[in-house]
Amino acid sequence: MSALSKLDVPALRALHAELSHELELQQANQLALDLTRGKPAPDQLDLSAGLDAAIAGDYFAADGTDTRNYGALSGLPEAKALGAELMGVAAEDVICWGNSSLTLMHICVELALSRGLWGDERRWSRAQPAKMLTPVPGYDRHFTLTQAAGIEMINVPMTDTGPDMQAAINLAAADEAIKGIWCVPKYANPTGCTYSAECVEQLAELPKLAAADDFLVLWDNAYAVHDFSFPSTPLTPILPAARQLGTQDNVVIFASTSKITYPSGGLGFVASGATVLRHITERLGNASIGPDKVNQLRHARFLSGRLEQHMAAHAELIRPKFDLVQATLSEELEALDIARWTTPAGGYFVSLDTRPGLAKRVGELAASAGLKITKPGATFPYGSDPNDSNLRIAPTFADMADLKVAMQVLTLCIKLASVEKQLETSIS
Amino acid sequence: MSALSKLDVPALRALHAELSHELELQQANQLALDLTRGKPAPDQLDLSAGLDAAIAGDYFAADGTDTRNYGALSGLPEAKALGAELMGVAAEDVICWGNSSLTLMHICVELALSRGLWGDERRWSRAQPAKMLTPVPGYDRHFTLTQAAGIEMINVPMTDTGPDMQAAINLAAADEAIKGIWCVPKYANPTGCTYSAECVEQLAELPKLAAADDFLVLWDNAYAVHDFSFPSTPLTPILPAARQLGTQDNVVIFASTSKITYPSGGLGFVASGATVLRHITERLGNASIGPDKVNQLRHARFLSGRLEQHMAAHAELIRPKFDLVQATLSEELEALDIARWTTPAGGYFVSLDTRPGLAKRVGELAASAGLKITKPGATFPYGSDPNDSNLRIAPTFADMADLKVAMQVLTLCIKLASVEKQLETSIS
Repeated sequence: MSALSKLDVPALRALHAELSHELELQQANQLALDLTRGKPAPDQLDLSAGLDAAIAGDYFAADGTDTRNYGALSGLPEAKALGAELMGVAAEDVICWGNSSLTLMHICVELALSRGLWGDERRWSRAQPAKMLTPVPGYDRHFTLTQAAGIEMINVPMTDTGPDMQAAINLAAADEAIKGIWCVPKYANPTGCTYSAECVEQLAELPKLAAADDFLVLWDNAYAVHDFSFPSTPLTPILPAARQLGTQDNVVIFASTSKITYPSGGLGFVASGATVLRHITERLGNASIGPDKVNQLRHARFLSGRLEQHMAAHAELIRPKFDLVQATLSEELEALDIARWTTPAGGYFVSLDTRPGLAKRVGELAASAGLKITKPGATFPYGSDPNDSNLRIAPTFADMADLKVAMQVLTLCIKLASVEKQLETSIS
Repeated sequence: MSALSKLDVPALRALHAELSHELELQQANQLALDLTRGKPAPDQLDLSAGLDAAIAGDYFAADGTDTRNYGALSGLPEAKALGAELMGVAAEDVICWGNSSLTLMHICVELALSRGLWGDERRWSRAQPAKMLTPVPGYDRHFTLTQAAGIEMINVPMTDTGPDMQAAINLAAADEAIKGIWCVPKYANPTGCTYSAECVEQLAELPKLAAADDFLVLWDNAYAVHDFSFPSTPLTPILPAARQLGTQDNVVIFASTSKITYPSGGLGFVASGATVLRHITERLGNASIGPDKVNQLRHARFLSGRLEQHMAAHAELIRPKFDLVQATLSEELEALDIARWTTPAGGYFVSLDTRPGLAKRVGELAASAGLKITKPGATFPYGSDPNDSNLRIAPTFADMADLKVAMQVLTLCIKLASVEKQLETSIS
């Protein structure tokens, strides 16, 4: 098959008829498939079966803390050490609190707005409204959280090596209402790219280049150890770079065990400079007597010394699914030259761009055949993809058989939408 | 011994010398005792050893939910049922989220301030500043949370049957900036009183009598099942009363398993009318993909059908400690007529009032002998007890031997402070 753009109208009509017929056949199958969910499959959850046996009647942390009782607001030392391993920082840079890095991000953003993170007069609420840079495509929950906080979002394009830093620097330098940037630095959601060393260095410096004096790099390292093969290409740690530049209190790092053990049943971590940690801890203390230290101890014991081995076992289960996605995309779309997609070395997603103006149509066609895909637009702030072309593929939760059918249906819908559009353009 | 007030100066001097000598002896013992901590002792924590075995490889909730994965933002059905049992409401009135009722209170107060709980224009931030009624003596963490939120606190006296309702009604009716009232309705912290049925009815009606149209009764039922004997005198449930009056969306109930299983290692609950629940759930969804459902399942399995039995076992361990406190107070202080204290039938505290102006001095004397007591003033907003007379006694964490010594030292300090003061008054 040659590139779609080279086909004449009769050939396009024939292809349209063929693809429409294929879709009808799939519709008749009454499928119920789902590629929306960036969550582990049950076989991945089974890898953490040993968690439940980690306490075995001994509830005492290494420092003698009885984890069953109140205390340790900022977390157990061994849980902080686990967070430090995940985030590439020292244990004293870490707070381990709650079950969710998203909750910690929310606390950080609300605190930055209301009372500031620094114990001085700086707070984002001085700007009306405060604004945030959002590399796109990105993570929808960052966008929802930011919007709910009343913060305006300004898009910055993602590249293969991280956000377009020249664009980010120009924007941040020109407007003191711009208070931060959201980053998923390793295996970014949804592109799967890992920020280059140069990009990390530039982000560590960004708070000094920004017009705002309270600029934050929000560093959501959700996929810190979620590699498909080991050893992986490492992410340059941002906190040491920030310390060299004096921006450690303008960088806040988040991580969790959500896709290491159990989503929602694990631990949330935040790391930053000492001033920010102190003010986050104080804020936590207004609303909490302490985190669930039993679960912290459980996780520390289960993962300590075997994190890479555990993540390698995840990779064994996930990698074939990502390989299948890549194989199907190449086989079905490459020759037609109608889409671009990413080939991540880890994480939970593949990002695909159709030709402009087709993503919503692909979503409609897929739904007609019983395939749910992440709502087109969701990878952009306000649900609005200016090109209507980005699709996020989340292949982990489906089993291989379902994933195979789902990818057939998805690529079929992309082909059909592309042919429809080209026919329309060719005729008019 | 006759009442202290009847003693003449020579008798007072003799008593002062005797008590001072006793204190010197205690000081020489280099004690390290602590009556500050409203937390379970290790033998109480041991009662929940079965929690850790409750999963036993079966992570699936009754409705088929895999508790290891994302989802169920407002909690598992069986966890909601447990909360409903604790709070005297229906399971559909309950959200089970997080490990802490304090965190849920903070979320509720911040939401009431910023966006309101009702999806309309009502929000406490319309008042500058918003104010809250605080029955005193009360729980210091309510006060800290309220102060941190920028809300002004107005004291209402506690009686043996709950807050002085006439005072509460008069205040709330006269000032639309008064947005709510903090309540610990059963075994109140620190008095240990349980609100009467009449008081509960009046509190359910208070939002209608208040000048504010967004008045909240914040009902912290922290000691809902923490009785010393069974069957206990029940607390009248407020939500049914509120429903009859149409105030169910002005009553927010909180509870947790903190003093049932493990403090910080358990479950938090919130209950209210459907409108409030919807807006709290929406707020939770901005910052959370869901609570730790594994721990919810663990708790529901462990406590279901045996909550009363479990709490009776707690009572067996706690009751002797409270009996010892009462016996020591009676023996050491009654004849002298120098203090009033409460005799709770459950909960974690005894409240004691010295003569006016002595509480801080008692704290100093106790500290000099190595006994920590809850900082005098802590049971009042802003740490300020206008009479400087209230002391909170928390006898659960100490073992019986330590508690016995601690109570001897405490009563000694109360006697000494009282004699000092009376001598000073008699001489001048």
